[in-house]
Amino acid sequence: MIFLFTDFGAGDIYVGQVKARLALLAPGVPVIDLLHDAAPFRVQASAHLLCALADDQTSGSVTLAVVDPGVGTVRRPVAVRMRESWFVGPDNGLISVLAARSDLVEVHEIAWRPSELSASFHGRDLFAPVVGRLAAGSLHPDALRPVAALDVSFGAADLAEVIYIDHYGNALTGLRASADGAERVFRVRGRAVRFARVFAEAPPDEPFWYVNSIGLIEIAFDRGSAAARLGLRVGDEVSVCAE
Amino acid sequence: MIFLFTDFGAGDIYVGQVKARLALLAPGVPVIDLLHDAAPFRVQASAHLLCALADDQTSGSVTLAVVDPGVGTVRRPVAVRMRESWFVGPDNGLISVLAARSDLVEVHEIAWRPSELSASFHGRDLFAPVVGRLAAGSLHPDALRPVAALDVSFGAADLAEVIYIDHYGNALTGLRASADGAERVFRVRGRAVRFARVFAEAPPDEPFWYVNSIGLIEIAFDRGSAAARLGLRVGDEVSVCAE
Amino acid sequence: MIFLFTDFGAGDIYVGQVKARLALLAPGVPVIDLLHDAAPFRVQASAHLLCALADDQTSGSVTLAVVDPGVGTVRRPVAVRMRESWFVGPDNGLISVLAARSDLVEVHEIAWRPSELSASFHGRDLFAPVVGRLAAGSLHPDALRPVAALDVSFGAADLAEVIYIDHYGNALTGLRASADGAERVFRVRGRAVRFARVFAEAPPDEPFWYVNSIGLIEIAFDRGSAAARLGLRVGDEVSVCAE
Repeated sequence: MIFLFTDFGAGDIYVGQVKARLALLAPGVPVIDLLHDAAPFRVQASAHLLCALADDQTSGSVTLAVVDPGVGTVRRPVAVRMRESWFVGPDNGLISVLAARSDLVEVHEIAWRPSELSASFHGRDLFAPVVGRLAAGSLHPDALRPVAALDVSFGAADLAEVIYIDHYGNALTGLRASADGAERVFRVRGRAVRFARVFAEAPPDEPFWYVNSIGLIEIAFDRGSAAARLGLRVGDEVSVCAE
Repeated sequence: MIFLFTDFGAGDIYVGQVKARLALLAPGVPVIDLLHDAAPFRVQASAHLLCALADDQTSGSVTLAVVDPGVGTVRRPVAVRMRESWFVGPDNGLISVLAARSDLVEVHEIAWRPSELSASFHGRDLFAPVVGRLAAGSLHPDALRPVAALDVSFGAADLAEVIYIDHYGNALTGLRASADGAERVFRVRGRAVRFARVFAEAPPDEPFWYVNSIGLIEIAFDRGSAAARLGLRVGDEVSVCAE
Repeated sequence: MIFLFTDFGAGDIYVGQVKARLALLAPGVPVIDLLHDAAPFRVQASAHLLCALADDQTSGSVTLAVVDPGVGTVRRPVAVRMRESWFVGPDNGLISVLAARSDLVEVHEIAWRPSELSASFHGRDLFAPVVGRLAAGSLHPDALRPVAALDVSFGAADLAEVIYIDHYGNALTGLRASADGAERVFRVRGRAVRFARVFAEAPPDEPFWYVNSIGLIEIAFDRGSAAARLGLRVGDEVSVCAE
């Protein structure tokens, strides 16, 4: 299976061009859109989101992971193997949180280059062909060159920030659920946020936090937008109150 | 064929997780996105929209239908069979308009539970596996338990409200086309709305209504947004004028 | 392979209905979404965008191309063959830029009509069945009737306008890259726009233009939205400065 995680825009002209390449190189392999609206230019936040979503993936899959504000400049293209799964994208930190938390990580620089490489769309010209061939088992051995480690890494630690705002207005953070759980009170944009198990148990007209379905602390409002009510944005700091 | 009708957001992180499950359990079965931007929390409006869209479906399909503000609380998961098609989702009314207008309806409570069930994403953890296995013909007979009827039903009658606003700004209502047709004048937000057969025959700078391609009365503006011009929202009442 | 290029909205209720038809008529044929958010009612701008995107397509594909504000009025449905590829849609100019720049163009009027044809959704009722059958090789010979030429053509020349704004806020123009390249200075909304090779080489807080990945002149801002900063809209004129 092939997964796509990008900031190309779910409704824009870029994803289709990538899928056309994949359909030619890996016919019959299912292609699943994990996300195409990762926060543009926010590589670290997206690295944490990719890591949380990737837990869901099956062994043997290949993921194209591209949030790449530096496209066209010097940063290595890489293919990272973790157990039976591959992640392919720029070596700008996007895959690094996942790699830092995984064992059996093999990092490969992509040595192959296409005959035509646009300056702005390596997702289509460089990464998609590698993903397609890895998924089809047709990648030439010389296309990858093992290297010691990623150039850019954000490390394995949690990120105490808003990393993504979903279309309901829920704010996902880079904090993973932990055992102490329900007693914690978080503070974001000056507002204290307490725990509720599910939306229906949240106090009316109060923000709450809960452990979301991909294991992250999420700030929400029952039947409302936490982002709009609290003025939240990707990058906002989230702290733990003493209370 | 599998159809998806949800409020998970077409560009958000949720649909991909559902499709990954489906690809594993029902490999090779086409998965069609009917809609992922059903108005959140608006179960009755979405029930009417699902019914209008479902007419289009082929016999033998399985539809995952989830608009579920009560996820994590007590409401039954159900699988409803109507002739050769299945609809799977929460028993909160979403499938009820379709069921009330159909014959040969069999309601089944879903007795099966996954080993891991998140509090907030039954679409992925509970409903998708049932949909995938129904489509693949691999659902264990004990997974479903016949029950007499749905718990929550909105009935078969039309809904005289705006139920959905499309990206052009056209406002779909829960009113079906009827024989008296073109003479009717509707009133919405204080404004009278007259009939036109197609957009190109509409009076300039006037809202009009027509019978849309899924059999519903729709309020529109030629080359403009009816929603923006008239300030329409999902839930707005639509009445018939005497005029 | 089947490609879809429409203004039906990537997150709306229309694309799924088209895909359901295609899945029945051309089972197993990959369907790739090129774009569903072409600027509504902007047929000429979209004709240039379709032409730039179509270069990417493989021989033997069939493209459904529908931006059709005149649906329900008299304009011919056509299927245009260019070498081994087909383009199917209304004869309103949408396919005409591509056709004017191609050789070996055969224009066919679609003579076939479905038993049920809605007034507003020919994309689903008329064009999708033709696309599906062309892709499956099952179209009846009488369904198409050769004609001399398209009724409406915008010609082969470039269009000196903004034709599309992507989700980053980059403004694509209908101007193709040419040899004189980097010396040109464009003017749009009163603002001079100079060349940069890639985003990372753009001057800070200045708009720039570059040759994008589909061969068009594109106006952009590094890590920002050119559309928001310059107030750009589809249809804005782009001129070459003397400077």
